[in-house]
Amino acid sequence: MFVVGERINGMYNDIKKAIQNKDKGPVQEHALSQIKAGANALDINVGPATTDKEGAMGWLVETVLEATHITISVDKAKYEAMKAGLEAAGGSLILNSTKGEEKSMDMWLPLAKENGASVIILNIDEKGLPSNVEDRLEISMRGLAKAMEYEIDTDKIIIDPIALPVNVAQAQQAVVLQAIREIRQLSDPPPHIIIGLSNVCQRCSNPSLISGTFLAMCIGNGMDTVITDATDKVIMDMMITAELLMNKSIYCDSFLEAYYSK
Amino acid sequence: MFVVGERINGMYNDIKKAIQNKDKGPVQEHALSQIKAGANALDINVGPATTDKEGAMGWLVETVLEATHITISVDKAKYEAMKAGLEAAGGSLILNSTKGEEKSMDMWLPLAKENGASVIILNIDEKGLPSNVEDRLEISMRGLAKAMEYEIDTDKIIIDPIALPVNVAQAQQAVVLQAIREIRQLSDPPPHIIIGLSNVCQRCSNPSLISGTFLAMCIGNGMDTVITDATDKVIMDMMITAELLMNKSIYCDSFLEAYYSK
Repeated sequence: MFVVGERINGMYNDIKKAIQNKDKGPVQEHALSQIKAGANALDINVGPATTDKEGAMGWLVETVLEATHITISVDKAKYEAMKAGLEAAGGSLILNSTKGEEKSMDMWLPLAKENGASVIILNIDEKGLPSNVEDRLEISMRGLAKAMEYEIDTDKIIIDPIALPVNVAQAQQAVVLQAIREIRQLSDPPPHIIIGLSNVCQRCSNPSLISGTFLAMCIGNGMDTVITDATDKVIMDMMITAELLMNKSIYCDSFLEAYYSK
Repeated sequence: MFVVGERINGMYNDIKKAIQNKDKGPVQEHALSQIKAGANALDINVGPATTDKEGAMGWLVETVLEATHITISVDKAKYEAMKAGLEAAGGSLILNSTKGEEKSMDMWLPLAKENGASVIILNIDEKGLPSNVEDRLEISMRGLAKAMEYEIDTDKIIIDPIALPVNVAQAQQAVVLQAIREIRQLSDPPPHIIIGLSNVCQRCSNPSLISGTFLAMCIGNGMDTVITDATDKVIMDMMITAELLMNKSIYCDSFLEAYYSK
């Protein structure tokens, strides 16, 4: 499982203040604690309030990379900020994200290609978010075709079938599980599949239990990438166990400890 | 999810002694606590040491039914003991189990039919336990055909694809998940699917975490029945949450409490 740790986000007050004061401490602390807990990449989001006039994205990326070498997922911002973030990050990169509509892909896929970045393609198109499996497959297929057009390897394509909150759109989780299975069949090698796990439990009771359980169910249907807070041990323990049950790691009595000490 | 609670089993010392002394207390206590924790049926097993000379199966079934009305799963014994158990139980019944080989099915399916019992058909045949999905599907198909021959409704057929311990046969869990999905496609209405959950974590560390996680993964692939210790709250919480995510129960903030107070 490839874990994109999400905590460096301007929607959190400590990161928002750190951006305003150019205070590296909180940013680097979160980066290191996400990695210690098992994150393989770090998602970086300037937050909804920041227009990035002050180059927040570039500063956040540089601040993280001062403290650690890791794949950076540059998350949803204006074009110039995303470009600055990708260029600051260099190395191993994820562009998070493009909608699956033609106009968006024609804007973001060339930027991904130029920077050698993997790219998350959302199952959203001109008609919005589909409620069924078939339309998700169609959007995914168009995304894979568009990636070929821009000569981006399928191995760099990460499809997000979009998980919705269980308290709002309860019938969608089973649809997402089936979509995960079937999107994996669309090409060989298959694209990677990701969900933003925190969406599922928004404003729900027992958020860690809901998130961890859904993550195990997604893994049991072939998902290989996730965006989550890696420091949530309830979620991570279930993820590690689900991976073990999919034969992706070797059983030993200390399989949890073995993962965390990697 | 239909939960068959497994605790009334002569392999446990307290039940073994209760059988020897015809002491109803421990048997009835376990029956009531399994039901309180969420069991929809109770599995009854005289244990490996008992030859059932003293009619242990019939006595156990009668003892349970004195305390509560519930579906009884009469578990693996000699023919006469199984017959006695089924006759003592009457009402809603599960015959647990027959192998999927011709000889076994020709012995057990008529007994199930005669007693109006549902029947668990194991994915084991003359050649033993298969290691792949295809052979599991073939055995399941032959089981469904044999059930039709004996005029047993598909709704009374519960296929067990056999989950093995993750520390012994680690590659088998993903095979079982795929088998669950594909066995459900074999007929319309589909057969029920069950696993004996405690098999998966035998002699493993973190048995509840492994069991609960695998149960969520099985539910995410369409399994609808399970044999487990219903009093294990770690397992049950994950099961309830997985069912919620499959839209089988309605979300409310107290979804866990709502389940347990049913």
